[in-house]
Amino acid sequence: MPKWNVEFTGKRPALKNPVFIEGLPGIGNVGKLAMDFLIEEINAKKIAEFTSYSFPHSVFINEDNLVELPTIEVYYKKFKNKKKDLLLLAGDVQPIDEQSCYEFSHKVLDIAKDFNCKEIVTLGGIAMKTEPKNPCVFCTGDSKELNNAYKKSIKNLNNNLYGIVGPIIGVSGVLLGLAGKRDIKAVSLLAETYGHPMYLGIKGTKEILKILNKQLNLKLNFKTIDKEIETIDSELGHKTLSAADLQRTKALRKTKRKSCDDINYIG
Amino acid sequence: MPKWNVEFTGKRPALKNPVFIEGLPGIGNVGKLAMDFLIEEINAKKIAEFTSYSFPHSVFINEDNLVELPTIEVYYKKFKNKKKDLLLLAGDVQPIDEQSCYEFSHKVLDIAKDFNCKEIVTLGGIAMKTEPKNPCVFCTGDSKELNNAYKKSIKNLNNNLYGIVGPIIGVSGVLLGLAGKRDIKAVSLLAETYGHPMYLGIKGTKEILKILNKQLNLKLNFKTIDKEIETIDSELGHKTLSAADLQRTKALRKTKRKSCDDINYIG
Amino acid sequence: MPKWNVEFTGKRPALKNPVFIEGLPGIGNVGKLAMDFLIEEINAKKIAEFTSYSFPHSVFINEDNLVELPTIEVYYKKFKNKKKDLLLLAGDVQPIDEQSCYEFSHKVLDIAKDFNCKEIVTLGGIAMKTEPKNPCVFCTGDSKELNNAYKKSIKNLNNNLYGIVGPIIGVSGVLLGLAGKRDIKAVSLLAETYGHPMYLGIKGTKEILKILNKQLNLKLNFKTIDKEIETIDSELGHKTLSAADLQRTKALRKTKRKSCDDINYIG
Amino acid sequence: MPKWNVEFTGKRPALKNPVFIEGLPGIGNVGKLAMDFLIEEINAKKIAEFTSYSFPHSVFINEDNLVELPTIEVYYKKFKNKKKDLLLLAGDVQPIDEQSCYEFSHKVLDIAKDFNCKEIVTLGGIAMKTEPKNPCVFCTGDSKELNNAYKKSIKNLNNNLYGIVGPIIGVSGVLLGLAGKRDIKAVSLLAETYGHPMYLGIKGTKEILKILNKQLNLKLNFKTIDKEIETIDSELGHKTLSAADLQRTKALRKTKRKSCDDINYIG
Repeated sequence: MPKWNVEFTGKRPALKNPVFIEGLPGIGNVGKLAMDFLIEEINAKKIAEFTSYSFPHSVFINEDNLVELPTIEVYYKKFKNKKKDLLLLAGDVQPIDEQSCYEFSHKVLDIAKDFNCKEIVTLGGIAMKTEPKNPCVFCTGDSKELNNAYKKSIKNLNNNLYGIVGPIIGVSGVLLGLAGKRDIKAVSLLAETYGHPMYLGIKGTKEILKILNKQLNLKLNFKTIDKEIETIDSELGHKTLSAADLQRTKALRKTKRKSCDDINYIG
Repeated sequence: MPKWNVEFTGKRPALKNPVFIEGLPGIGNVGKLAMDFLIEEINAKKIAEFTSYSFPHSVFINEDNLVELPTIEVYYKKFKNKKKDLLLLAGDVQPIDEQSCYEFSHKVLDIAKDFNCKEIVTLGGIAMKTEPKNPCVFCTGDSKELNNAYKKSIKNLNNNLYGIVGPIIGVSGVLLGLAGKRDIKAVSLLAETYGHPMYLGIKGTKEILKILNKQLNLKLNFKTIDKEIETIDSELGHKTLSAADLQRTKALRKTKRKSCDDINYIG
Repeated sequence: MPKWNVEFTGKRPALKNPVFIEGLPGIGNVGKLAMDFLIEEINAKKIAEFTSYSFPHSVFINEDNLVELPTIEVYYKKFKNKKKDLLLLAGDVQPIDEQSCYEFSHKVLDIAKDFNCKEIVTLGGIAMKTEPKNPCVFCTGDSKELNNAYKKSIKNLNNNLYGIVGPIIGVSGVLLGLAGKRDIKAVSLLAETYGHPMYLGIKGTKEILKILNKQLNLKLNFKTIDKEIETIDSELGHKTLSAADLQRTKALRKTKRKSCDDINYIG
Repeated sequence: MPKWNVEFTGKRPALKNPVFIEGLPGIGNVGKLAMDFLIEEINAKKIAEFTSYSFPHSVFINEDNLVELPTIEVYYKKFKNKKKDLLLLAGDVQPIDEQSCYEFSHKVLDIAKDFNCKEIVTLGGIAMKTEPKNPCVFCTGDSKELNNAYKKSIKNLNNNLYGIVGPIIGVSGVLLGLAGKRDIKAVSLLAETYGHPMYLGIKGTKEILKILNKQLNLKLNFKTIDKEIETIDSELGHKTLSAADLQRTKALRKTKRKSCDDINYIG
């Protein structure tokens, strides 16, 4: 019964220069939403699944009305004609306390190192008192060089962080802080949104996706994204969500998630 | 001084295809009440008792005015003419935090595996704003097949879980989530009740007992149950309980509990 | 840097049939106050001092305006013409969480066993909405025999515990619950008092002292105790205390505490 | 992945009779502010940096708009013509819980012992309902002798601690309490200030600096300090700060901090 359990699924992919992107629940759920859309749109495949004694002691009910332990998952996308493949961290929970967050972040970096990642992007929200109409995006990280590269792709850049933006809490923050100790450059894209972890920050999410699209040349279909956003928004968007509502946002990527069914290659 | 302590009592029973049923304190105490009634009615015998540093740091006062450490207990019932015997998990507490809940659930599954259980049922409540007059019962789990089998025994089935029912928290949830990893099928029966852990959800409890009765062919005497429910209800039912009140509901099974007095067979 | 540290002071006393009495901060501080008065009155000597990473992360300021780590201490009293000597557990704090409370209680029982104690008494308060004028005392424990022996010494006995008195939380409760597992009989004397941990339940304290006096034939001088109670009461009694006020109640036993200055016999 | 990580930077300095001074965030941030000014004014050099799983699970944004893990740092100052050099403990956070605070304090004392420190000074605030116009300073510690020495340098001494000043919580308190067990004398200087950890207790800070200046003959330039205080005060002083505001107070010592760039001598 180890505290942390990671199960790898399918054959180990050979990835080119993978960029590692993280998007977990948090302020406005901007990180989680952007990641769920991204996985759906580029049809990423699951490669690994974390379960842990340091995740919430509960199960979620999925779209088949069956239960699932809380998990955080790693997906990958291998592109044909691009210089950089992707590794993606998605999930419904954050580790439950400080020490777990540090431990988990190191386990994530172990995987990033194993695939020889040189670049990490963490996604999140900056809490505002209301959802802004045209949310700006803040960019920070552990490397001026990588920061500057990403800033070029940000239309609504807000460059005024120091003394304004408080600590970045959770996996999005700790991954940034630890990456340098593991010789990985890291940036964070933080969109303005309404400051509630059970709110769906749709507008901020879209800003984040535009930046990733431009910077990583992903050719995302924003028509599909807009339609999906509309659906979520009409059903769930105009209120503060329950944990069950929030869970439903994952349904968007359900079909693709089920396709990673090969044999395990790591126990 | 290990963190977890389990004492086995009496001779190890030889059980046929045992179904493992869990009912601990929780929303409306539906799980705990149903389990306490069941143990009383079928005259189940205690087989094991958990104490732990991860249970509350307190003692309860029992019906003899003496103190007892908080315990969670395993009972069994061997039937003469049935295909399936029973193992039952009852108690006054839940483990105090996330990690303890996972650890404890694995220890419970160790026992289930040791008796070669193939089927687990966890009992609980779904929080409503008031106690419903005719509470529905939700059914979920880790296996469509077992789910469907139990659904046939549910008169007031509510099949609308996904996106409605939030995470199932505590041992009732984690046992479900971990069972599959130990090759055990698991279902959960969740009755609508008033959303307070110190409330006695009598009506939901009765719905749960009816389902177990039908599905497992237990031949419970609902006249006795109704009378006992009436007694509890008239004394305690119409208010939110204190921890001392709640403790009294265990008195129903006091006589039978005392009868497991043989020698220990596991230290 | 072990989590628990116990330093023994002076020569190990040879004690006759020692009764182990515990009185730590809690509801109305009845246990702590009774113990502080008792140590003062019978001139008990310090024999051991616990410090721990699981005590509050702070220091108190003592009567010399110098700091002291929070400690829990063991005192002893060797009587000339009595059948039973005393071991006494006093202090300014409780362990900070559930697991620490269990661990600490076992460490205390190690000492009790080492001195061959057969009898433990824990002291505490029962929370009322106001301080009762003539507080009753409840008696419970792990042994009917010892319970009945103590009940004979209680004038204002309230025998109506079951279903009324909630769980006994903290060291006073856990010691009771674990004592039986170490073959020690234990009782708890719980006086009615105002339900606030920073209140000084003077009246309940006196009831407890009367019972100990009678049961253990201590020949306490209640005139002195009354005078000391008056002093505390006039200075601190009619309000809810701060932690600094509470600390001052220990001053009563300051002179005697300083007299245990021999060499350490356990490192 | 050890829980505590300390990285030493640069060549190990040879220090004469170093006095170890601690100033971390706390009541009114008096300790942190005094330490930040001191490091700036005497141009102290960084010698070591703690990171830990028991610090907050977040990153701060620094004056270059890049992220930094929360750290606690050790600085030193070697003087030419003085009897006592300095070791200084500064940082943006406190360990997150009781056990971490004890563990961290012992790690700090390991460093103090390694440099053969005989004297520790911890800095902090005493919570008042408003910021006093002429804040007094309290002095306590583990040694009458050292206490008396420091009291001579305190103009606004308040000698009335016992029964008035509550427990000293956090590293400032625990260092005091543990120092004696490591054969180090320790004092604490506690200035009256407004009782909020996100408030900047400028006036109390200045009182503390005056005492250190006199007692350790530091020849601090109070004109510079007054000007810096004015700047901070006009920007941040008249409100309760956010974590981001608080972070900005560290900027005062930014230039000097960057100059410790030699090779690591401990891994």
